[in-house]
Amino acid sequence: MSKDVGITVKKNEDFAEWYTQVVTKAGLADYAGIRGFIVLMPYGYSIWERIRDFIDKRIKEVGHQNAYFPALIPESFLRKEAEHFTGFVPEVFWVTHAGDEELSDRLAVRPTSETIAYDSYSKWIKSWRDLPLLLNFWNSVLRAEIKMTKPFIRTSEYLWQEGHTVHATKEEADKEVMLTLGIYRELIEDMLAIPVLAGRKTDRDKFVGALYTTTLEALMPDGRALQMGTSHNLGQNFSIPFGIKYIGKDEKEHYAWQTSWGLSWRTIGALIMVHGDDKGLIVPPKIAPIQIVGIPIYYTEDEQRLVYKEIEEVSRSLRQAGFDAHVDDREQYTPGWKFNEWEMKGVPLRIEVGPKDIEKKEVTLVRRDTFDRARIPKERLIDEIGKILGEIQRNLFERAKRFLDERTKTTATYDEFKKMVESGVFVKACWCGDTACETRIKEETGADIRLIPFEREELFSKCVRCGNEAREVAYFGRAY
Amino acid sequence: MSKDVGITVKKNEDFAEWYTQVVTKAGLADYAGIRGFIVLMPYGYSIWERIRDFIDKRIKEVGHQNAYFPALIPESFLRKEAEHFTGFVPEVFWVTHAGDEELSDRLAVRPTSETIAYDSYSKWIKSWRDLPLLLNFWNSVLRAEIKMTKPFIRTSEYLWQEGHTVHATKEEADKEVMLTLGIYRELIEDMLAIPVLAGRKTDRDKFVGALYTTTLEALMPDGRALQMGTSHNLGQNFSIPFGIKYIGKDEKEHYAWQTSWGLSWRTIGALIMVHGDDKGLIVPPKIAPIQIVGIPIYYTEDEQRLVYKEIEEVSRSLRQAGFDAHVDDREQYTPGWKFNEWEMKGVPLRIEVGPKDIEKKEVTLVRRDTFDRARIPKERLIDEIGKILGEIQRNLFERAKRFLDERTKTTATYDEFKKMVESGVFVKACWCGDTACETRIKEETGADIRLIPFEREELFSKCVRCGNEAREVAYFGRAY
Repeated sequence: MSKDVGITVKKNEDFAEWYTQVVTKAGLADYAGIRGFIVLMPYGYSIWERIRDFIDKRIKEVGHQNAYFPALIPESFLRKEAEHFTGFVPEVFWVTHAGDEELSDRLAVRPTSETIAYDSYSKWIKSWRDLPLLLNFWNSVLRAEIKMTKPFIRTSEYLWQEGHTVHATKEEADKEVMLTLGIYRELIEDMLAIPVLAGRKTDRDKFVGALYTTTLEALMPDGRALQMGTSHNLGQNFSIPFGIKYIGKDEKEHYAWQTSWGLSWRTIGALIMVHGDDKGLIVPPKIAPIQIVGIPIYYTEDEQRLVYKEIEEVSRSLRQAGFDAHVDDREQYTPGWKFNEWEMKGVPLRIEVGPKDIEKKEVTLVRRDTFDRARIPKERLIDEIGKILGEIQRNLFERAKRFLDERTKTTATYDEFKKMVESGVFVKACWCGDTACETRIKEETGADIRLIPFEREELFSKCVRCGNEAREVAYFGRAY
Repeated sequence: MSKDVGITVKKNEDFAEWYTQVVTKAGLADYAGIRGFIVLMPYGYSIWERIRDFIDKRIKEVGHQNAYFPALIPESFLRKEAEHFTGFVPEVFWVTHAGDEELSDRLAVRPTSETIAYDSYSKWIKSWRDLPLLLNFWNSVLRAEIKMTKPFIRTSEYLWQEGHTVHATKEEADKEVMLTLGIYRELIEDMLAIPVLAGRKTDRDKFVGALYTTTLEALMPDGRALQMGTSHNLGQNFSIPFGIKYIGKDEKEHYAWQTSWGLSWRTIGALIMVHGDDKGLIVPPKIAPIQIVGIPIYYTEDEQRLVYKEIEEVSRSLRQAGFDAHVDDREQYTPGWKFNEWEMKGVPLRIEVGPKDIEKKEVTLVRRDTFDRARIPKERLIDEIGKILGEIQRNLFERAKRFLDERTKTTATYDEFKKMVESGVFVKACWCGDTACETRIKEETGADIRLIPFEREELFSKCVRCGNEAREVAYFGRAY
């Protein structure tokens, strides 16, 4: 694959162009031959594998299992829940023919799996003994995007997981919603080092067909909010039309309570935007496919032999200690070229080994986040590397957290509100609770309510727009 | 999920019905709400995960990387390689609308990814330095099946992996084809315990657009051949229409050589058919999601407490030793009911622990393949279990190998050939090499050439049908 030059624009000068360059030049994704779609490239895929493995392990630990449902969904299924259908239909890719044969019931290319899954669930669930049903699907979903393509953020197809669970009571469904949102938060904050706000969506922005939606929201460097993962209590909105009923211990028939929750490769987009710098990507160590890259430094052939041997040894001992270490032993590139390449790819830590390092029984370490250099005695290498990777992880999170804190502002007046929104921040303000007022705010400022925090905050003014009695403290922002 | 009764037909009396019952009752798959499609259920999915993990690890070890390409492919891409298009077009699901908007170029729901991938490859590959390109995609492909649905074997959508590599020379592509076929063979014979024949397809049956196709073929208990995995040398058949060219070390432009190879969840279908018995599935230990199931046996509450504690301890020590052990501690079912359930699910080894076992410091083991019982002193448990699981794995393979050997027959006369085909075997016979003759054999007997072995076997007669000079020793059979 061609690797021309580095990133040619600065992150704070042309953020959109910077983003596109990092995505493509770091080998994360490429535009596909079909408009609106991307190819997830090997390096991007290996980050996705780590996200997937983390979520997969955590949800299995708490009793979930994986399944796979068809990629095509009959239109008649989608129509069973009216809001759901209306919400999705404008963006559905419709299959109308199989070979030359025209289909009587059109098929939707999976925009989400609620309806096809719940058709099966209604057959599987008979008794309280069959509950809870805790399933998850790893797949891709398709939604026709007529607007501009933005890799990972706005594409007509994306990889994700969708969990679909069934419970006997609303309380159990409530618990499930928070459990999975908590797993998402762990991934996003602890692994991806991206701080988020957590809360509920308003009715206007909840998932079509849900009782309520919970969300994690991050703030990107351009001041736009990004929804990182959502978890919905579907109530009985689907169990009633799909007939998902169980005979309870009371020997009576009850409609079940359901949840669904999803997290997509959009998290990779956030990771790029939040942590990257003018040199390219910075991948937090805990999610990095390559945590440490070794670059041999030499002038003569004798030195080369010595240095290659040494760096291979160092790398092997790191791998044995559980680190993901890689040696760039390509002879056709200079060390300087390699530094740029791996900085662009955001490998958190670089090791340089040259003849002098060998002589002194040291190696040189360079951090990707701060470019700090340090020479470390070989004997202390493993301990030091563990420590430094931990520091990088922490530093990336703290940097992002400071940004989020600085960019979360509070106001009681609509004039200030508008200015704040314009400046690209989360605005905390009081709201009357009226959807019409919320819509007017969106129309007038471009900002919508990203979330109502879970822990009720104290009301500190009237509604920021209409001046009526406030009912909620809400976080507003302009979103992607 | 409802778990009614066990398998109600015998494998050798109604094989098709037996298969369907095992698939659904063991919780491997269920028919979906859309005709021709299935749902991969949690137990089936966990077997697929093990197949996936094995292939994924092995291909990465030899330098392959994963990527993801779009699920929709413009018709114009498919048309670029004429044979390929003609081969796939009768079974393509066509997307004609996005929302309400009619598309100008119809989109195929991915029947295979050659064309969409190679469109990208042509942009990525410029120089010999970009080669080899070794990519693999885990996804699902869709092909409209108008005939009867048979879970895992004949469905309109299936999960698989497809590898797509690009090389500088034909020789390198040849090597890649054999390398990946070898990995498939390792999975199928060593892990799934299914013996196969290996060889080349004739031109009549090669992949549409390939230079040649290699295959692994197994024989099912009903005497039908099943293609388990294929690996193709695509030659320059795609690189020319797609313009996949590189500047060589000679500074001249060359068209690249390509391979593609795929293995699907069909292997799960083979596993069911080959190893299952009248009680249900038998999963070879190396691929089993649950290798050992523990069943507590007790009468009084005191015994229950004791037995639960003991069996949990045993199970924990097995898990620590690296085995996949599970305790069925459900109180609402009797031990007898549980025995049937886990036998149906094919767990290779059962441990029973009752008060007497505890007293004697023993456990009772029951093998799923032979139903042999043994009492083992607790202190030798780990060693014994490792040994017994190894024996089960071996026994399953050998049983299947004996069947394959007995059912592989040789003939020089067409009369005998027809009778042999009718009896459900692989027939080894000499063939003139003429496609028309091969087609006539298929029309007259229902058998086609499953493969020509890699190691040229000595010709022992004229062509079995036409009596002309033979050119190949071929293996014939009737396929699914």
